[in-house]
Amino acid sequence: MTRYEKVATVLRERIERGIYRVDDRLPSIRAVCKEMEVSISTAQEAYRQLMDAALIESRPKSGYFVLPSRVPTVLPSVSRPAQRPLDISQWDQVLELIATQRDDSRLLLGRGVPNLDYETLKPLSKILAGLHRSSDFNGFNYDKLNGSPELRQQVAKLAVASNCLLHPDDILITTGCQEALAISLRTLTQPGDVVAVDSPSFYGTMQILKANGLKALEIPTDPQTGISLEALELALEQWPIRAIQVTPTFNNPLGYTMPEARKRALFQLAQRFDVAIIEDDIYGDLAFTQPRPCTIKSFDDDGRVLLCSGFSKTVGPGLRVGWLAPGRYRDQALHMKYVSTGASATLPQLAVAEFVAKGYYERHLRYANRQYQRQRDIMISWVQRYFPEGSGISYPQGSFLLWVELPAAVDCVRLNERLAQKKLHVAPGSLFSASGKFRQCLRLNYAFTLTPAMEDAVRSVGELAMKMVEEANQHAAY
Amino acid sequence: MTRYEKVATVLRERIERGIYRVDDRLPSIRAVCKEMEVSISTAQEAYRQLMDAALIESRPKSGYFVLPSRVPTVLPSVSRPAQRPLDISQWDQVLELIATQRDDSRLLLGRGVPNLDYETLKPLSKILAGLHRSSDFNGFNYDKLNGSPELRQQVAKLAVASNCLLHPDDILITTGCQEALAISLRTLTQPGDVVAVDSPSFYGTMQILKANGLKALEIPTDPQTGISLEALELALEQWPIRAIQVTPTFNNPLGYTMPEARKRALFQLAQRFDVAIIEDDIYGDLAFTQPRPCTIKSFDDDGRVLLCSGFSKTVGPGLRVGWLAPGRYRDQALHMKYVSTGASATLPQLAVAEFVAKGYYERHLRYANRQYQRQRDIMISWVQRYFPEGSGISYPQGSFLLWVELPAAVDCVRLNERLAQKKLHVAPGSLFSASGKFRQCLRLNYAFTLTPAMEDAVRSVGELAMKMVEEANQHAAY
Ligand SMILES: Cc1ncc(COP(=O)(O)O)c(C=O)c1O
Ligand SMILES: Cc1ncc(COP(=O)(O)O)c(C=O)c1O
Repeated sequence: MTRYEKVATVLRERIERGIYRVDDRLPSIRAVCKEMEVSISTAQEAYRQLMDAALIESRPKSGYFVLPSRVPTVLPSVSRPAQRPLDISQWDQVLELIATQRDDSRLLLGRGVPNLDYETLKPLSKILAGLHRSSDFNGFNYDKLNGSPELRQQVAKLAVASNCLLHPDDILITTGCQEALAISLRTLTQPGDVVAVDSPSFYGTMQILKANGLKALEIPTDPQTGISLEALELALEQWPIRAIQVTPTFNNPLGYTMPEARKRALFQLAQRFDVAIIEDDIYGDLAFTQPRPCTIKSFDDDGRVLLCSGFSKTVGPGLRVGWLAPGRYRDQALHMKYVSTGASATLPQLAVAEFVAKGYYERHLRYANRQYQRQRDIMISWVQRYFPEGSGISYPQGSFLLWVELPAAVDCVRLNERLAQKKLHVAPGSLFSASGKFRQCLRLNYAFTLTPAMEDAVRSVGELAMKMVEEANQHAAY
Repeated sequence: MTRYEKVATVLRERIERGIYRVDDRLPSIRAVCKEMEVSISTAQEAYRQLMDAALIESRPKSGYFVLPSRVPTVLPSVSRPAQRPLDISQWDQVLELIATQRDDSRLLLGRGVPNLDYETLKPLSKILAGLHRSSDFNGFNYDKLNGSPELRQQVAKLAVASNCLLHPDDILITTGCQEALAISLRTLTQPGDVVAVDSPSFYGTMQILKANGLKALEIPTDPQTGISLEALELALEQWPIRAIQVTPTFNNPLGYTMPEARKRALFQLAQRFDVAIIEDDIYGDLAFTQPRPCTIKSFDDDGRVLLCSGFSKTVGPGLRVGWLAPGRYRDQALHMKYVSTGASATLPQLAVAEFVAKGYYERHLRYANRQYQRQRDIMISWVQRYFPEGSGISYPQGSFLLWVELPAAVDCVRLNERLAQKKLHVAPGSLFSASGKFRQCLRLNYAFTLTPAMEDAVRSVGELAMKMVEEANQHAAY
């Protein structure tokens, strides 16, 4: 047991025995150092462990606090996907989800969109309105193929927070993170190739696999620590895997963050089998505690990690500003970028660059993350109250997506059909699997302002789900 | 001979005999009807024939005029490409061209960018600055996957000018025309498939073929009437061609427009062999005479034409607003669009929609096309004056790109290297071929405001080319 693990264990025991109780403030880092005779970094690491385990949380400028006991909350179970490469289906379901994305007549409880109403986003409009006034305005001409230098510089600066040292030239601006993922996969693979993925997994990536004739090997994934390294290792021995695609930080949909040590171990595994990693970090900046988690890319000493990210979940998806740090695959990625869309749109890049450079981005993150953290707890309490007993609920430490595992009797595609009558919509779990698993799961969004109407909506989903459980029970009883 | 061909022949003979001389105004349509006892549409068609043949031109509100005798101008020769499917190379050269695209230290005589300084574009900045003030502003959210309804409606309206009746739902907004082309090719083909292309051909399309492992079958192409239907028919009999990709209107780089009858015949040929056509119409609205030429799509009665276009060559390439009318391939194209970039950026779409809806687009076209027509003639006169004798020069009826065929001794890649010292750059012809042909050709842009400095630049290119001819002669003499 390392030193920080020892410290964490001592603190954990005190919490479990009720020495520190819910909402109590824990001793400060400094106090722990003194009491246990450890360094500041050891104490910090111990606290981080406890935060990862969702036992405590840090509140800005106040310290560390014990979280409510989560005993009544069951976590979703570890996925046990099919153990062979599969073709992807589900496009119809994805299309339905996307098509309803801008459908104002339905309340889209499962959408993947951040809150765009916060005041801290307002400066962006001003920036956009003012752009053409700059003396060297060139916003209607082709931008550089790898993106505007102003923006790449800001991205490089931001990446430091995730422990990544990137040069602006290591970065390629893309049209959304989706293009970064598509470029990465097309850079690394040929049709028929096998790609290992965490499971459940973002449907957008799955559809890229489908469109490119790639097969997904879904690896069992723990809802707290992420992709199983043990299962992945076995898979790497057994199958000709060309790339590993993961979303290790504030995973969509499961919400977990792989602990740093497991991120490092994943990198080492990839290195041992000489496989590339596509790391999707689109939610990485939406951390409820600082510093934000590191990326796998931060361990990348030989350029095998293609880091995909962007500003869709922070500043706004309609800007379509994503980015890719393609490591050693830069030349091929640049070619793929050219044939995909040429340069990306100039104006959104310039606007985001200015938004970040002037400090608005950080300010907005601070505000949004505080809101999301509070709203996570509210949404969880609603689900606990209104959903069938025994439902598993994720406990994300960042972002705005909640994953709920309902009793097996509930088929969320059918649930969604019934919800249509109430003008409601959730993201059914089967969207997130190549093999159509997770039908009893669904994704909820808590970026919305959580009004009483929202609570009613969540209650309606829960009630309908309960009804489906009852129906199944009655059916079984006959 | 049809009636209008007869009329055209009579008029042509009068021009050749000097009855109508250069800059003379021809009899009006009405006068011709009366004299030759034909209908208005027959007379119009005859005049159109003469315009296609570059014998006359129409000047807005003034009538039809005899063009300068083009006897001293030699047209580029018909291409005779390799008669088998080829893999694409030339990425390095393309990358160099793109990389220099925003290099302010060099004068890029060969770039593919319209003039962005015209006053008639100014309203676009105002529109962009004002967008966020609209009450239902949603510019930071994901747009609909197939594009903003406002823009699709405007595109459908504009398409009428090319004889296309499109419903807004037939249209898919893309991130530049490049994405429309990429989606089309990926919708129709599998790696290893053969695609028939006109030759020379836009390098962006060639690179899509390369990235997708497709083979290009370059079809001989006439510098006045476009892809040879006879050669294409033979090719269709001989090879398993999956798609025909052409730019039939104001072709880049050759400048020709396929006569309407040949467009129709091309469509019928595709129908007979049950092959799809990818029609690139990105320059179609830049017509020097009205109405603009029709598209092949306008003959499409069974949805086999995928029409690719956009606003890069008219409003501004940095907006990345393209569009695709995918015909019967709509569903697959939508899937490809989703995996490529998701929805396209919202703001540029809204801005272009308003620019068109308010009539600014048409006003801008009228102005820009008048400028380009004048500048074409100036640029041609410079090339005739300064380039080696016997150089072939294209005679475009629209757009802003000139194609020059130099004596065989001139290798334009080497020419470009020498031009670098003078901070000049042309687009070498070999960019436009899978087989690296057209090394003695180059593309010039006359969208620039043609200042004395520009004339100096063109003179420098010509002088260097002459020097290369002389060097070759001397070499041959020894
Ligand atoms: C994990 C993940 N990656 C990528 C994306 C796509 O991001 P963008 O909208 O920037 O293309 C999403 C959006 O839902 C996502 O959840
Ligand atoms: C014939 C042709 N098609 C397509 C394109 C690409 O257009 P966009 O910039 O809209 O992607 C170009 C640009 O050079 C072109 O010349």
